[in-house]
Amino acid sequence: MDLIIKNGTVVTPSGMYKADVGVQDGKIVEIAASIPAEAKEVVDAAGKLVLPGAIDGHTHLAMPFGGTISSDDYFAGTRAAACGGTTTVFDFAMQDFGESMVDTIKRRDAMCAPDAAVDYGFHVAVKDVSGGLLDTMAEAVAYGVPTFKVFMVYDFGVDDGVFYQVLEKAKSCNALIEVHAENRDIIAARTKEFLAEGKTDAWYHYLSRPEFVEAEADMRAIQWAKSLDAPLYIVHLANKQGVEAVTKAQQEGYEIYAETCPQYLEFTSEVYKRPDGRNFICSPPMKGEESRQALWNAINTGVISTLATDHCPFQSYEKDWGKDDFTKVPNGCAGIENMYPYMLAAANAGKITFEKAVELCAANPARIFGCKDKGAVEVGKDADLVIYDPELDFTITNDKMHSDCDHTIWEGVSLHGYPIATYSRGRLVYRDGEFVGERGWGRFVKRSRI
Amino acid sequence: MDLIIKNGTVVTPSGMYKADVGVQDGKIVEIAASIPAEAKEVVDAAGKLVLPGAIDGHTHLAMPFGGTISSDDYFAGTRAAACGGTTTVFDFAMQDFGESMVDTIKRRDAMCAPDAAVDYGFHVAVKDVSGGLLDTMAEAVAYGVPTFKVFMVYDFGVDDGVFYQVLEKAKSCNALIEVHAENRDIIAARTKEFLAEGKTDAWYHYLSRPEFVEAEADMRAIQWAKSLDAPLYIVHLANKQGVEAVTKAQQEGYEIYAETCPQYLEFTSEVYKRPDGRNFICSPPMKGEESRQALWNAINTGVISTLATDHCPFQSYEKDWGKDDFTKVPNGCAGIENMYPYMLAAANAGKITFEKAVELCAANPARIFGCKDKGAVEVGKDADLVIYDPELDFTITNDKMHSDCDHTIWEGVSLHGYPIATYSRGRLVYRDGEFVGERGWGRFVKRSRI
Amino acid sequence: MDLIIKNGTVVTPSGMYKADVGVQDGKIVEIAASIPAEAKEVVDAAGKLVLPGAIDGHTHLAMPFGGTISSDDYFAGTRAAACGGTTTVFDFAMQDFGESMVDTIKRRDAMCAPDAAVDYGFHVAVKDVSGGLLDTMAEAVAYGVPTFKVFMVYDFGVDDGVFYQVLEKAKSCNALIEVHAENRDIIAARTKEFLAEGKTDAWYHYLSRPEFVEAEADMRAIQWAKSLDAPLYIVHLANKQGVEAVTKAQQEGYEIYAETCPQYLEFTSEVYKRPDGRNFICSPPMKGEESRQALWNAINTGVISTLATDHCPFQSYEKDWGKDDFTKVPNGCAGIENMYPYMLAAANAGKITFEKAVELCAANPARIFGCKDKGAVEVGKDADLVIYDPELDFTITNDKMHSDCDHTIWEGVSLHGYPIATYSRGRLVYRDGEFVGERGWGRFVKRSRI
Amino acid sequence: MDLIIKNGTVVTPSGMYKADVGVQDGKIVEIAASIPAEAKEVVDAAGKLVLPGAIDGHTHLAMPFGGTISSDDYFAGTRAAACGGTTTVFDFAMQDFGESMVDTIKRRDAMCAPDAAVDYGFHVAVKDVSGGLLDTMAEAVAYGVPTFKVFMVYDFGVDDGVFYQVLEKAKSCNALIEVHAENRDIIAARTKEFLAEGKTDAWYHYLSRPEFVEAEADMRAIQWAKSLDAPLYIVHLANKQGVEAVTKAQQEGYEIYAETCPQYLEFTSEVYKRPDGRNFICSPPMKGEESRQALWNAINTGVISTLATDHCPFQSYEKDWGKDDFTKVPNGCAGIENMYPYMLAAANAGKITFEKAVELCAANPARIFGCKDKGAVEVGKDADLVIYDPELDFTITNDKMHSDCDHTIWEGVSLHGYPIATYSRGRLVYRDGEFVGERGWGRFVKRSRI
Repeated sequence: MDLIIKNGTVVTPSGMYKADVGVQDGKIVEIAASIPAEAKEVVDAAGKLVLPGAIDGHTHLAMPFGGTISSDDYFAGTRAAACGGTTTVFDFAMQDFGESMVDTIKRRDAMCAPDAAVDYGFHVAVKDVSGGLLDTMAEAVAYGVPTFKVFMVYDFGVDDGVFYQVLEKAKSCNALIEVHAENRDIIAARTKEFLAEGKTDAWYHYLSRPEFVEAEADMRAIQWAKSLDAPLYIVHLANKQGVEAVTKAQQEGYEIYAETCPQYLEFTSEVYKRPDGRNFICSPPMKGEESRQALWNAINTGVISTLATDHCPFQSYEKDWGKDDFTKVPNGCAGIENMYPYMLAAANAGKITFEKAVELCAANPARIFGCKDKGAVEVGKDADLVIYDPELDFTITNDKMHSDCDHTIWEGVSLHGYPIATYSRGRLVYRDGEFVGERGWGRFVKRSRI
Repeated sequence: MDLIIKNGTVVTPSGMYKADVGVQDGKIVEIAASIPAEAKEVVDAAGKLVLPGAIDGHTHLAMPFGGTISSDDYFAGTRAAACGGTTTVFDFAMQDFGESMVDTIKRRDAMCAPDAAVDYGFHVAVKDVSGGLLDTMAEAVAYGVPTFKVFMVYDFGVDDGVFYQVLEKAKSCNALIEVHAENRDIIAARTKEFLAEGKTDAWYHYLSRPEFVEAEADMRAIQWAKSLDAPLYIVHLANKQGVEAVTKAQQEGYEIYAETCPQYLEFTSEVYKRPDGRNFICSPPMKGEESRQALWNAINTGVISTLATDHCPFQSYEKDWGKDDFTKVPNGCAGIENMYPYMLAAANAGKITFEKAVELCAANPARIFGCKDKGAVEVGKDADLVIYDPELDFTITNDKMHSDCDHTIWEGVSLHGYPIATYSRGRLVYRDGEFVGERGWGRFVKRSRI
Repeated sequence: MDLIIKNGTVVTPSGMYKADVGVQDGKIVEIAASIPAEAKEVVDAAGKLVLPGAIDGHTHLAMPFGGTISSDDYFAGTRAAACGGTTTVFDFAMQDFGESMVDTIKRRDAMCAPDAAVDYGFHVAVKDVSGGLLDTMAEAVAYGVPTFKVFMVYDFGVDDGVFYQVLEKAKSCNALIEVHAENRDIIAARTKEFLAEGKTDAWYHYLSRPEFVEAEADMRAIQWAKSLDAPLYIVHLANKQGVEAVTKAQQEGYEIYAETCPQYLEFTSEVYKRPDGRNFICSPPMKGEESRQALWNAINTGVISTLATDHCPFQSYEKDWGKDDFTKVPNGCAGIENMYPYMLAAANAGKITFEKAVELCAANPARIFGCKDKGAVEVGKDADLVIYDPELDFTITNDKMHSDCDHTIWEGVSLHGYPIATYSRGRLVYRDGEFVGERGWGRFVKRSRI
Repeated sequence: MDLIIKNGTVVTPSGMYKADVGVQDGKIVEIAASIPAEAKEVVDAAGKLVLPGAIDGHTHLAMPFGGTISSDDYFAGTRAAACGGTTTVFDFAMQDFGESMVDTIKRRDAMCAPDAAVDYGFHVAVKDVSGGLLDTMAEAVAYGVPTFKVFMVYDFGVDDGVFYQVLEKAKSCNALIEVHAENRDIIAARTKEFLAEGKTDAWYHYLSRPEFVEAEADMRAIQWAKSLDAPLYIVHLANKQGVEAVTKAQQEGYEIYAETCPQYLEFTSEVYKRPDGRNFICSPPMKGEESRQALWNAINTGVISTLATDHCPFQSYEKDWGKDDFTKVPNGCAGIENMYPYMLAAANAGKITFEKAVELCAANPARIFGCKDKGAVEVGKDADLVIYDPELDFTITNDKMHSDCDHTIWEGVSLHGYPIATYSRGRLVYRDGEFVGERGWGRFVKRSRI
């Protein structure tokens, strides 16, 4: 054996049990009441939890956006991920106009491969389906990328017609479409109105895209998916009416998934009234307390399938561009290191179960994104493992974070319980607050939804 | 007295009772158990119903559309209306780019006034709210036109941002927004697909804009109205899911109205499989049987507030342009003469009550559109009256119709019961199958919603 | 003419208009712009509203209950009704065991006929359907009583099996079943618990039968009606979840009616915390604010069809029996004189429309209970008329009331607008605060639902 | 090691993976990619599935009912269970009047312990909570029985008041209440009607308690549970409206569980038209096809948590008592041996997943009933294991079954895939069609829901 983690409590989506876990050649090869301690590395996890590494299905590393580039490159981002117990990261590869989807993937992979500290994959963000480009979706699927995203907002977003075509194609080639759902026209109209009235502080970022704007797009996206009986995955769901729409569609038997992010579970739109409100600007924005409660409820009823971070950090000086005009703030926040610790602390506090945390952050992303070797502490799976100390107290401050970003919206948040070690395919990459992995260790994860 | 209608049964939205009705100077001045028969004109309506004239809130007369002009001008259209028991017609005045809304109204009124055989009003179809044009809505309200329409489809339609602004303005000036709700992008995408596949017959008109395409737009429109708590009127609602969305919004307390048309109550999408399917092409198209049933149900539960015709006839040679390509068929059908007879026959057959027919075709349009002198057989109201013979059998054939159109989708439909006389402000305009009114008799109806 | 009411504004469920109203032989014979003032009695109603007399579908006069008899006999009760603008009263005739339903009616009619100051009818409260008694329902229908009530609570209530049989029979003989819906067993269990814990003040009356107890019975009653497709009328609906259940059933197309009472619109369960809380004890009790709002909303959406009073007064000394034990308080409150003034004041204040008030208090009860000569200011109807002064201020105090009861829960409530005259079949019975009618004037109203 | 199962595919609720499973002292002690084959017993499960033994939460063994005693005693019933892959059986211990709940358990345990072939537990069927008996629920919980059942039907059922008290008590002592939900009064009323009309064949068993009768009781039971926020478990849910009610309550966040049985998934009420319809008589009866579909859908959406059998067999001669009168047929059917094979065959056919079958039949009953050592192939759990051959074809005939009953409603049903071995705490109890266990091997399972 290369590694044995002894005496810990293994967590699965359906239970917890004490067992030793044995690893060889990067794989989990044995789980037993007691494994003789004969291995290169033996770790005592008594009193600790042994968890699958988290899968963050939604990051924007080195992403050109808002007139700049998100401040974590593939190394900084995946390093931070590792230190937060996340062992697989799915980043968005944004298609160029005229570019085949496989080329898009290869282009980003060339950037990512030398840098990645943990395993990674891509979702293709679709911009152009003209000519034969729609058919290159099937090629991307064959290449190991069966997940695509469309934006209903932004200048690089698509209209409903393209969205519909992409859903149709995805159905035919066993792919899954993810959608950023907000209504472009209403945001523009309200923003124009606010600017005309001199309403320019961060609070108006929220008011330019409040609950009903997101909810409408959720309902519209679901409508197209239902009409085609195509699977759909709504990213960063953040409003109550959207939760209701997803609930209804699921109960009707449609394959509709919803993802939310820790920031929508922790914060409300009130943050935009803070002096540093601009640092919290992301899209969709945090919503009211009613939505926040609805998201927690949707987690417990199973309506929300996954957690992800939408990690897209910008430096303070970039956020400051919009000090006097919310429309000039690059949209996005850091969070890649905070998801798993946050959700596990929620479990530790009894708000959800540890089983649920593992389901949301590991098992479900693995299943939904077609990631067959990840997401469980199970014989045969990659030894992407996290050791979690439920008694360790941790207060988030930016100097303890491993991103390149100079601030965090999570500053000052206290968590009871924290990861103390992360393994990527059996290799220790994080221990006791320090990154101990290496640049370029991470590998591209080929996936399939069938 | 100028006119006394004796021995008839008066119908109101809440009941039926025997009474004589007396008219003077175009107004109803007396309703009594017995009025002495001293008048210029005395009519015996024993065994007949005495009804308020219908109000058709949705017509397109002399309308440039689909590369031609709808084939009924203001005289032909209002003549046909009179012969079907409709005594008030609301036509759409389509704004030109850069044109103030009052100018739009005046421009169309100049065409209509010399021709109209019954009273008329306009809804302004809004295209342009740039510059100060949005504010000209309030001027139009002051002029007596408190109703505006937006199209979510067609090249002259608006985007969601403009729709939203118009709703907001309408709320502030006591106006009502009507909406043609279908999704433009999906129609375009599906149409393109069908044409590429050589699917060009009338059936594909239906499939290019089936139930879910209309339903989505209904939900979206309702979402904007709810967000502003602004009143909204959905024209020609034709699908079940839309009915459900309206129902929910009404039960939540929002002022959302739905109109449907007789063609959606009588026909289903099966008509598009007929050899003359192109003659039935209108938008939205007829839908499946489930939607047809849902519309009848929505009438009985009160979810649908009004009937109207969407009268927009084109000659056979024009319809034939699309013999080999459904996209070349001008969209629209004749129907202005058929609404009231059709709904009254439904009442006569026990499908609805006569009270309900009067509510849908007269009382509700009068109330919703702010038409204070119309819509009821009541002392003080305009003497717009219809005498209806519940025993008269009538089979619709185009030669009995009074439109200029050379065919009718209602050909061959048999009705038990039919109007035998129509009065416009006390003047007989229709009797026993013949138009006996005059060109130019109709007056512009000034309205107010407060 | 016997009576002409000039210059008033007539109110119907669908509008208001200025007209003179002429009465002869107890009937409305003419409504006109101007009737020459040649009559035995001419009243100027300029600035006033002319309304149909209200129909109170739910009273308990001279009713043995709670160990005593309700304190208004048929004279006192109908006198008070007249003074509140109510011109028809439907009282419950409680069947004795073994008694045929027609005998029940005749027995009560013998008590009522000599006393009634306004017209009246009965609903039979069914206790016993054994032997051939179920079939006597059809005899009662033939006698002019097509309405029956079952109680799901009280020792004289029925079980679900009898309820079901009665619904089935009612359907077959064009009758309507009314139901008092609360859950007997839960009330008993909770009451026992409270008494054991020494919780005996009026507040525990509420807690012994809170929202969910009534709601369950509403849902159950609706379930039986739906299974038989039989019409059902839920009396004194007082909770939000019940409103939702009725709404759903109506939207599904079932003939389900809901009645509520002014006390549920005005008061909440907070009244049971008052020192005189026991005076407010009635069943079902007033509920929380959320239910109160839901009832108002249900009025405006049309889910609630009728208002009634559940008038069942007891003297203070009787209420005091339960000073130290809420279970000893006779259940019921006075209200027969307050319904119409209260609802009209709500209209006057803009909370509802006058049309809605007339629909709820007159037109709908007439239609639902099969009362063909009542409920509208319409030629041919009984001249049951109310003249209402919208500018008259009135503060309710018990000394101004015309019941025999020595207190009122409405004490101190101020209304803007009040009835100034009531006519019963053309005879003045109330004027300016005084009863001017006569004992025995009222007649039994024969009814039919077909 | 005592036992090693090599080369099989382990199934968990969240996935499937190849691994060897090692057992010692009745416990699973190791799961590994490869365990050296050094054990008393080594089994090759290549090409087979390795599953947790099923838990049947609903059986009636040796139960006095319908004038006789169900025909499987504790040995016959548990023997049949073992042969169907069920390794834990929960039987109902029916309280006697005046009996403490622990006494009830001990009384039945004394019968069961010498006979049981697999492990077992009890739910107490509550009849009497008078005196201090309600408090004996807490004693039963302490004894290891935290689950109780109430019947809303039958002479031994309880009224709503007792149901409510039991729910309240259960909440306070961490117990779970199960409920048989049908409406007693309506069944009685309809039955009486049918008998009076001479409608006595098996079809009228169904019509005496059709969909709406069960649905009402579901809604009522949920209402009480919600009012107390107490957990509730609805046994043998068999109707669509009930599914909807459970769905709604779960989405509102209430802890409401639903169980269904294989007979409701396979058969519809049409079986009651068969000549042997009386053999299918159980309560609730099978329902219409719409309900059957709704149950499958509820399984896939997670609304239904568990499968169980309601095994309650009667011999043909007993069923024949009701040949001419459905009310004389003892209610109940055999099924204890069929559940797991049926659900696994459904998985094998792609109707559900194997993961779902394991969740429904093992993991969820273990979790919900507080059975901590059962329900998963997991290190530390009891070695209750089933080896399943997905390629083995099996047609059910009564002679292959191991119950004492002389017929089966499952006669002739063909399954693709079947269990080939069952282990109870590591001991082989079934192999290749034969029972190889022993009477008295089974032990009482102490449980706790906290």
